[in-house]
Amino acid sequence: MKHVDVVVIGGSAAGLTAAITARRHHPEKKVVLIRKEEQVLIPCGIPYIFGTVGSPEKNLIPDGMLSKNDIELVIDEVTEIDRDAGEVKTVGGESFGYDRLVVATGSLPAMPPIPGFELENVFPIFKDVDHLKHMQGVLKEVSDLAIIGGGFIGVEFADECKKSFKANVSILEMLPRCLMLAYDEEFCERAEELLKERGITPMTDTKVKRVVGDGRVEGVELADGRTMPAQAVIVGIGAVANVTLAKNAGLHIGPTGGIIVDRTMRTSDDRIYACGDCAEKVSFFGGRPSPLKLASIATAEARIAGANLFGTRRESIGTVGVWSTVIGETAFATAGLTESLAERHGYEFVVGAAEAPNRHPAGMPGLHSMKVKLVFEKRTGVILGGQVMGDKAAGEVINAISACIQQRMTAEDIAVFQTGTHPALTSSPVSYQFVNAAEAAIAVM
Amino acid sequence: MKHVDVVVIGGSAAGLTAAITARRHHPEKKVVLIRKEEQVLIPCGIPYIFGTVGSPEKNLIPDGMLSKNDIELVIDEVTEIDRDAGEVKTVGGESFGYDRLVVATGSLPAMPPIPGFELENVFPIFKDVDHLKHMQGVLKEVSDLAIIGGGFIGVEFADECKKSFKANVSILEMLPRCLMLAYDEEFCERAEELLKERGITPMTDTKVKRVVGDGRVEGVELADGRTMPAQAVIVGIGAVANVTLAKNAGLHIGPTGGIIVDRTMRTSDDRIYACGDCAEKVSFFGGRPSPLKLASIATAEARIAGANLFGTRRESIGTVGVWSTVIGETAFATAGLTESLAERHGYEFVVGAAEAPNRHPAGMPGLHSMKVKLVFEKRTGVILGGQVMGDKAAGEVINAISACIQQRMTAEDIAVFQTGTHPALTSSPVSYQFVNAAEAAIAVM
Repeated sequence: MKHVDVVVIGGSAAGLTAAITARRHHPEKKVVLIRKEEQVLIPCGIPYIFGTVGSPEKNLIPDGMLSKNDIELVIDEVTEIDRDAGEVKTVGGESFGYDRLVVATGSLPAMPPIPGFELENVFPIFKDVDHLKHMQGVLKEVSDLAIIGGGFIGVEFADECKKSFKANVSILEMLPRCLMLAYDEEFCERAEELLKERGITPMTDTKVKRVVGDGRVEGVELADGRTMPAQAVIVGIGAVANVTLAKNAGLHIGPTGGIIVDRTMRTSDDRIYACGDCAEKVSFFGGRPSPLKLASIATAEARIAGANLFGTRRESIGTVGVWSTVIGETAFATAGLTESLAERHGYEFVVGAAEAPNRHPAGMPGLHSMKVKLVFEKRTGVILGGQVMGDKAAGEVINAISACIQQRMTAEDIAVFQTGTHPALTSSPVSYQFVNAAEAAIAVM
Repeated sequence: MKHVDVVVIGGSAAGLTAAITARRHHPEKKVVLIRKEEQVLIPCGIPYIFGTVGSPEKNLIPDGMLSKNDIELVIDEVTEIDRDAGEVKTVGGESFGYDRLVVATGSLPAMPPIPGFELENVFPIFKDVDHLKHMQGVLKEVSDLAIIGGGFIGVEFADECKKSFKANVSILEMLPRCLMLAYDEEFCERAEELLKERGITPMTDTKVKRVVGDGRVEGVELADGRTMPAQAVIVGIGAVANVTLAKNAGLHIGPTGGIIVDRTMRTSDDRIYACGDCAEKVSFFGGRPSPLKLASIATAEARIAGANLFGTRRESIGTVGVWSTVIGETAFATAGLTESLAERHGYEFVVGAAEAPNRHPAGMPGLHSMKVKLVFEKRTGVILGGQVMGDKAAGEVINAISACIQQRMTAEDIAVFQTGTHPALTSSPVSYQFVNAAEAAIAVM
C-alpha cells in the first residue's frame, strides 16, 4: 500500500479543481488524483461536440493541468473506500492510504422508468468519449431526432445537432415552456421563437409515454396518444449524484441523493470531503436542499474543499445557481431566483426590467438588444435573482449580478452601482440595463 | 417668469439622467431641462465618429428619452443662476424659477499653456457637432496627424483615425507608457504593441514644447529638440470642470476645480445639486479629491442627485473609477486601483493574475485570451482594483469586479465566488480568471 496525504477520486471539474486547490494551499502535501477515464471530457462542452466543435477528442480537459501542479495522476477505478483503514482500493489491485480523501465522483444521467429506454439508439449522455463517438455516428444518419427534456442540455443538443445533421430535431418537454426552471415566461418564449427560427420543433406540455421500436428505436409515443417518428432519442432530463462508493462506505446521503457535506464540504467522516455533482447542496436562499448540478458550482465547492483539508478556512454560502446558454447568437443567462422560484421559496417580491442596445451609438458593430430582469424581496429590497438575454457578454453580465446576489445588495445599492461602459462593449451609461432594472423595481416597491 | 419644480442645466449624460431620475422618483413634479445644444453628442462615442460610426449625426443622444419621460426640453443657454430669487436666466431672455436646481454643465477640454495651441488645425475635442464635422473634413486630407495625450481619448482617436484616414498617426505621451494612469506596465505594453501592429506610432516619454506653423499648424516641436511634421494636432489630455455659472453664483468650488457637493450631491446651496464632470469628486479609496471624469460616473451621480431632490435617500460611496477601451479586437478594462495607484494611496498590497482562453474548449468560436489582474490590501485581503485584457466581454467582466470592489470583498470571498460559465461565452469554470487571480494573490499573502 502506498500512503499519500491527499487522495482525490474523480478527474472532472470538481476533482481537478479540488486537487489544484489542495496543491495551492498545501504545497508540502503529496496529492494523488485517481480517475477511471483515460481522457476527461469538458462536461459543459459535450453538446458542442455534435456541431461547433466536431468531435469528442476536441473537447478534452488537458492533463497538463495535473502535471504542472505536481499532482500524481492514476488512471484506475476505485472500488472501495475503507474508512477504518483510511485507504481506497482499485480495480487494478492497488490501494492508497490517505490522510484526507476528496470524493468527486460526479453524476450519471437521470433515467426515469419510461418503457423503451433500453432500446438501441436511445442515448443518455454519458461523459465518455467512445459513447459520444458512437452517438455522433448514429445521429449523422437519422432522419428524425427526438430530444427528451427542454432544459439547457436538451436545448443545446438541439441547436448543435441541427447545425450539423440532416435530421428533423424535436424537443419534447413536459412543462409549458422550454428552460422554464431557469427563466420566466418572456425569456422562455423568446428562446422557443429562436429555436423555431432555427428549424427546431419545441413541443411543450408534451409528456412521453414510451419509446417504441423493435430492438432499435422507431418512434416516441406521447401521453396524448400520438406517436412521432424517431430513429434516435437523446435523454436530457438531468443527472443523479453518483454515490455508490460513498454509500457503500457508509457516508451519509442527503434528500436529493448526494453525499451530505457541511458548509466546509466535509462529509460525515472528518477525513473525507466531497464536492461537485456527487455532493448534496443547499440553496443560498433559505438553505433548503438544492437539486442544481453545474460545473461552476462544482469548482466553487472544490475550491472550498481543497483549501479546508488541513484546517478550515472557507465556508459555502449555499448554492446561488448561476448559468447561461446560447441559442444561435443570443445568450440567455440566469442567477438566483426567477419570479416563479421566488414565489415557491415564499418570498414577497417585486421585479424590474430594462432593455437597451448593447452598444452606443447603434452604429457600433456587434449591435444586439440586451434585456435584464431583476427580482427583489419586497420589504428589504434585497436582490434575489436576475435574468439576462442578449449578446454573448450576457455570460459575464450575469456574473456581476451574481456578485450582487451573493453580497445581498439592495435595489438602492444597485441603482447607484458604478459601472464601466464603452461604445464598443456595452450599452450607454444612461441606459445601462442592470442599473435601470433596479430603478424600475424601486418604482413599484 | 415661469416657475417649475425642478430645473436641470445641461443635456449630456449627467443632466439627462438626473432629469429622468427626478421624474422616476418624483412623478408629480414638473421637470425642465435647459441645454444650449440643438443636438447632444454621445460623449464616449466621439472618437468613433472618425472611424467606425462615420459622422457626428450618427452619434447623437435621442431626444425621445426626454419626451417619453415627460421632461420639458428648452434649448437655450443659461447665463445666470440667481440663488436669492431662486431662478435661472437665459440668453433667450427667459427666466425659470425653481424649487430645486441641478447643475450638470459638464467639462471643457483641458488646454495647457503650450505655445501654438491657437494655430489653425489644432483641435481640442469640443462636444459640438459643427466643430467635429469641420475636424473630420480636415483630418481626411492631412498626411501627418499628431495626437497629444496617450490616455483613452488619445488612443481611441488614434485607432479610429488610422482606420479611416490616410494620415500617419502618432501619439505623443509625456509618461513612460500610454494608458499608464489606468493600467499597470504589462497591460500598457500590450496596448502599445497593438497600436504599433495597427500602424500607429506611440511616442512615450515625449514632451511637447510647442506647436509650430504659420497661421496653420505645420509641426510639433518636442522637448528634446526634434520637430515632427503634423498638419493637424488633436489635443486629448483631459478635461476641466465647466463651472463658470456655478462660480458666478457663489457656489463653493473644490480642489480639482469642480463644484463642491456632499455625498448626497448637494452643493453649498441646499436647493442646488450638481453631478457629472462639473461636480467635485472624492475617491472611494480614502476619500481624497479624485480628478476622474467619466460618463458612467456622471450617470451614477445623477441617479443620486435626481432621487434626493425632495428628501435624501441615496449617498455616494465615492468614485471607484471603472472604465474600458478597445484597440482593434482587444478590450482593456480597469476598476479601482492599479499597483501604482495603490502605492500612491499608501496601501501595502499583493497582486494576483490569471490568464486563460475565454472559451472552452479552444475550438469554440470567438477564441481570445483573457487576462485578469487583481490588487488586494495585504493584511485584510480586501480587493482594491482589477484590470482585464481580452475579448469584448472584458467590458462586463470589469463590472463584476467593480461590484466586488464596491462591496469590499476579500480575496477569500472572491476565491469561492459562484460564477456562471459556458463554453460559448466564458472561460472554463476550472480556469475562470477572476477567481483564479484571487487564488494566486492568496498564495502570496
